[in-house]
Amino acid sequence: MNRRLVIKVLGAIMLIEALAMIPALIIGVVHRDPNDAVSLLFSALILAVIGLPLWLLSKPQDKNMRAKEGFVIVALAWLLLSAFGALPFVLSGMIPNYIDALFESVSGFTTTGATVVVHFDNLPHGVMFWRAFTHWIGGMGVLVFMLALLPQMTGRTSHLVRAESPGPSMSKIVPKMGDSAKILYLIYTALTMLEFISLIIAGMSVYDAAIHSLSTAGTGGFSTYGESIGAFHSVAIEIIVTVFMILYGVNFALYYHVLIGDLRTVRKSEELKWYLGIYVFSVIAITIFITPMYGSVATGLRYSSFEVASIVSTTGFGVVDFNTWPQAAKGLIIVLMFLGSCAGSTAGGMKTIRIALLCKLGLREVRRTFQPRKVQVVRFEGKGVEEAQLSQISIFFFVYVALILIGMFLISLENKFDVQSNFSAALTCVSNVGPAFGAIASDFAGYGPFAKCVLSILMLAGRLEMFPILVLFHPAIWRKG
Amino acid sequence: MNRRLVIKVLGAIMLIEALAMIPALIIGVVHRDPNDAVSLLFSALILAVIGLPLWLLSKPQDKNMRAKEGFVIVALAWLLLSAFGALPFVLSGMIPNYIDALFESVSGFTTTGATVVVHFDNLPHGVMFWRAFTHWIGGMGVLVFMLALLPQMTGRTSHLVRAESPGPSMSKIVPKMGDSAKILYLIYTALTMLEFISLIIAGMSVYDAAIHSLSTAGTGGFSTYGESIGAFHSVAIEIIVTVFMILYGVNFALYYHVLIGDLRTVRKSEELKWYLGIYVFSVIAITIFITPMYGSVATGLRYSSFEVASIVSTTGFGVVDFNTWPQAAKGLIIVLMFLGSCAGSTAGGMKTIRIALLCKLGLREVRRTFQPRKVQVVRFEGKGVEEAQLSQISIFFFVYVALILIGMFLISLENKFDVQSNFSAALTCVSNVGPAFGAIASDFAGYGPFAKCVLSILMLAGRLEMFPILVLFHPAIWRKG
Repeated sequence: MNRRLVIKVLGAIMLIEALAMIPALIIGVVHRDPNDAVSLLFSALILAVIGLPLWLLSKPQDKNMRAKEGFVIVALAWLLLSAFGALPFVLSGMIPNYIDALFESVSGFTTTGATVVVHFDNLPHGVMFWRAFTHWIGGMGVLVFMLALLPQMTGRTSHLVRAESPGPSMSKIVPKMGDSAKILYLIYTALTMLEFISLIIAGMSVYDAAIHSLSTAGTGGFSTYGESIGAFHSVAIEIIVTVFMILYGVNFALYYHVLIGDLRTVRKSEELKWYLGIYVFSVIAITIFITPMYGSVATGLRYSSFEVASIVSTTGFGVVDFNTWPQAAKGLIIVLMFLGSCAGSTAGGMKTIRIALLCKLGLREVRRTFQPRKVQVVRFEGKGVEEAQLSQISIFFFVYVALILIGMFLISLENKFDVQSNFSAALTCVSNVGPAFGAIASDFAGYGPFAKCVLSILMLAGRLEMFPILVLFHPAIWRKG
Repeated sequence: MNRRLVIKVLGAIMLIEALAMIPALIIGVVHRDPNDAVSLLFSALILAVIGLPLWLLSKPQDKNMRAKEGFVIVALAWLLLSAFGALPFVLSGMIPNYIDALFESVSGFTTTGATVVVHFDNLPHGVMFWRAFTHWIGGMGVLVFMLALLPQMTGRTSHLVRAESPGPSMSKIVPKMGDSAKILYLIYTALTMLEFISLIIAGMSVYDAAIHSLSTAGTGGFSTYGESIGAFHSVAIEIIVTVFMILYGVNFALYYHVLIGDLRTVRKSEELKWYLGIYVFSVIAITIFITPMYGSVATGLRYSSFEVASIVSTTGFGVVDFNTWPQAAKGLIIVLMFLGSCAGSTAGGMKTIRIALLCKLGLREVRRTFQPRKVQVVRFEGKGVEEAQLSQISIFFFVYVALILIGMFLISLENKFDVQSNFSAALTCVSNVGPAFGAIASDFAGYGPFAKCVLSILMLAGRLEMFPILVLFHPAIWRKG
C-alpha cells in the first residue's frame, strides 16, 4: 500500500470539504445567526488545520495509483467527509449527539436523505444549507470533483472514478479523465441552476429553492420541512421537482451526447428505455391503486407520478405519506426501492442496467434448461456483454441482498421496531432512497446508536456500490507492501 | 417436443398417485368414517380411469428423453399431482373450496406445510393421513420414486432427476440412476420408520406418530393439531422431532456413505459443516434473545433448538409462536428462511451449498477489487468449482429473490395484509418453510383465491428450484418439434 499517496489525497479531500463549507458559512452570516456561522467556520478551520499539512508534507515517491489504493482512498475519503461533515450539526447544537450527526452527514453525502431531525422549526439556515449541499457533493462524487479541479494530481486516476461512480462500467465521456470530470460537473451545475430558477418562478423563496434544487440534484431528499415538498401545496413545484428527479436519474453521459448534437445515441439507449418503461408502468399501476383513495384520477396521477419518481430516482422527497396507501402500492414501492436509476446518474439503488441484465440472464437460464448446448450471448445496447461482467453483476446482486438482510438482522438486535420497519430501513439505506415504512416512516430518530452506525455503513456501501467499503474489512488490504 | 413420451410418463404418475392413496384409504376404512374413505376411493378411481389409458395407449416412437421433455414432465407431473391430490380434501368436505384444497395439496407435495385449515377438530382421519403422505411423496420426489419402481422405463432419465432433486448438482449415488433412486427411498423409509417408532415410545398415539413422522420426513410441517408439536407438551417428543428435522436436512448421499462404512467422506463434507455451523450459531443467538422472555436458559434453548431446526430444515413445525419473540429473533428467522438445508436432502430453501458458494464468490469479488489480475478459483469440498456453475448459482439467487418480490407484489394486489405478512408469505412459500409472520402466522385462510394461486406457483417453483416451473411460461417450449 502506497500510504503516502493515500494520505496526500485524503489531505486534499479535507481541504475541498473545508472550501465546500464556505457557501453555507456565507448564508449563516447573512441570516445573522452567530451559532450557525461560527459552527461552520470552526468545522472548516478544523478541516484546514488537519488537511493542509497532510496535503503539503506527504510526498509520495511513487505517484502511480493501483486498484488497491484507488478503492482505499475512495472508502476512506467518504468516511472522512462524513466524519467531519457532521461537525457543523453538533457545533451548532442542531443535532447535539455526534452519532446522530454522523448518521445525518452520511445520509447527506450518500444522497440517502434519511434524517434524525424531528422538529423543523427554527433550524440554523447555514447548517441546513450545508446539509443539502452534502447531497450535491455526494451526488456526483467528491473524487470526481477533485479530478475536475486537479486533473494532473495523480498519474492514473481511473481506479478512483471506477470506485466512486455508480454503475457497472466507468463513465468516461471523453478520453481524458479530468476533462470528463469537468464536463460532468458543468452539466450537473447547469441542471441545478435550471431547477433553482424554475422553483423560484414557481413561487419558492430563494433559500428554499436553493436547498431543494441541491437536494434534487444529488437525488438526496433532505428538505427544510417535515412534510417535504408536500409543505408547498403547489402543483407547479411538484411538477418541476418530478421532472428534475427523473432527469437526475438518467446517465449524465447522455446529456453530453445531447449537447454535442448526437441524439441518435440517446434514442438508442436501452437503459433509458428500461428506466422510463419502469417509471411509466409503475405510475400507471400506482395511479390505479390509489385513485379510489383520493376520489379522482387526476389526484391519483399527481401523487403517484411524484412518489414513483422520488423512489425510482432514490431521492425520497414526499408529497403524501405512502404508508397510508393500499398494500398493493406499498408492495410495488418496496420492489422499486431495489431498482434505482441509470448507471452514471446521481441516483442510488441497484441501477437499471444491472436489473435489465439480470432479467436477461434469468431468461437465458430458463432457455438453457431446454437448450443446454446452444451458446446464448446476452446483448445490451446492441452489443454482446462479456460473461465476466455478467457474473460480476449477479454477485453484486447477491452482496446487495445479503447486506440488506445482515443489516436488517443487526438493527433488529436493538429490539425496537418490527420486521417491516427494520427491513425497509436496511433496504432504503442500502439503496440510498431515504423514506421507509412503519415506525420509521418520517425519521430515523428512534433507532439507537448501534443501529445508526450499522445503517451508516449500509448507506456508504450502497453509495459506493459495495466493494470499496467491503474492502476495508478485508485484512489483506492493511498488510504492508 | 416428444408429446407421446410426456403423456405416457404423466399417465404413470397418475397411477402412482392412485396407488399412493391406498394407505390413507385403509386408515379411512379403519376409522369408519364413510365420507372419508369414499372421498379417497373416488379420487383414486378418477386418477386410475384417466391415468391408465394415457399410460397404456400412448406409444412414443422415440424413447429418448431430452432436457426439454425432462423439465416439462417434471413440471406437469407436479401440477397434476397437486391438482388431483386436492380431490380428497374437496370430496370429504374437509376443504370444500377447490382453490383452497389445491393450495393445501400444493403445500403438501412441495413440503411447505402452509395450511388453510383453521379448525382442527373432527377432521377425517384418512384424508388427514393423505395430507401428511403428500409431504412424504413430495420430499423425495415422485419421479425419483417412479425411477425406483420402473428403472427401465425410459432411456435417459438423468434430466428427470436433475429437474426434481434439490441442489445445484445431481445426486447420483451409484452409477445407475434406478439403483440410486432405490437406495434413496430405502434410506428415506428406514428413517421414517425410526422416527415413527421413536415417537410412539415417547408417548404419541400410532396415528399421530404416523402423521408426524411422514410430515417430518418430507420436511413439510402439516400436523393434526393447530398448535403443531406444541400440542403434545412433551420434551421427549420435541427432542425426537428436532433431531429428525436436522437429519432430513442432510444430503442423503452422506447416509449412503455411512452405510457403506465410508465415514471419511462424511467428516470431510464441507456442506455439512456449513449446515451444522449455521444451526449451532442460530440456536445460540436465538437462545440469548429469547431467554429473558422465558426466564430460564433451559427453556430458551428448548424452544430455540426446536424452532431453528424447524426453519432451517424448512419443516415448519412449531412449539411456540415465534411471532411473539423479540425482533432480533424474528430478524434472524427471516434470514434463515432464505437458506434451507443441504442439497440432496428433502428440505427446501436456497440450499446451504449455494449460500456457501455465494459467500465465497462475494469474498472473491472483494479480493478482486484490489487484486484484479490474480486468478482466484472458488473451492468447495476440496475441489475447484467451475465458473459456469458459479454463474448459474448466482443467477439462481437472483431468480429466487425476484420471484419472492414479484410474488409479494402480486399477493398484495388483494390489499388484505401488510407488507410484513405478504413478504413473509412469499418467502415462506418459495422456500417451502410454511409458517410466516403477522396476519398469516397460523394459517393462509385469509388470502383470496388469486393470492392462493400465486402462492401455489411460488411453492412449486421453490420445490422444483425455479426453472422447471418457469420453463412452462416460455413460449418456445410449446412450439412443435
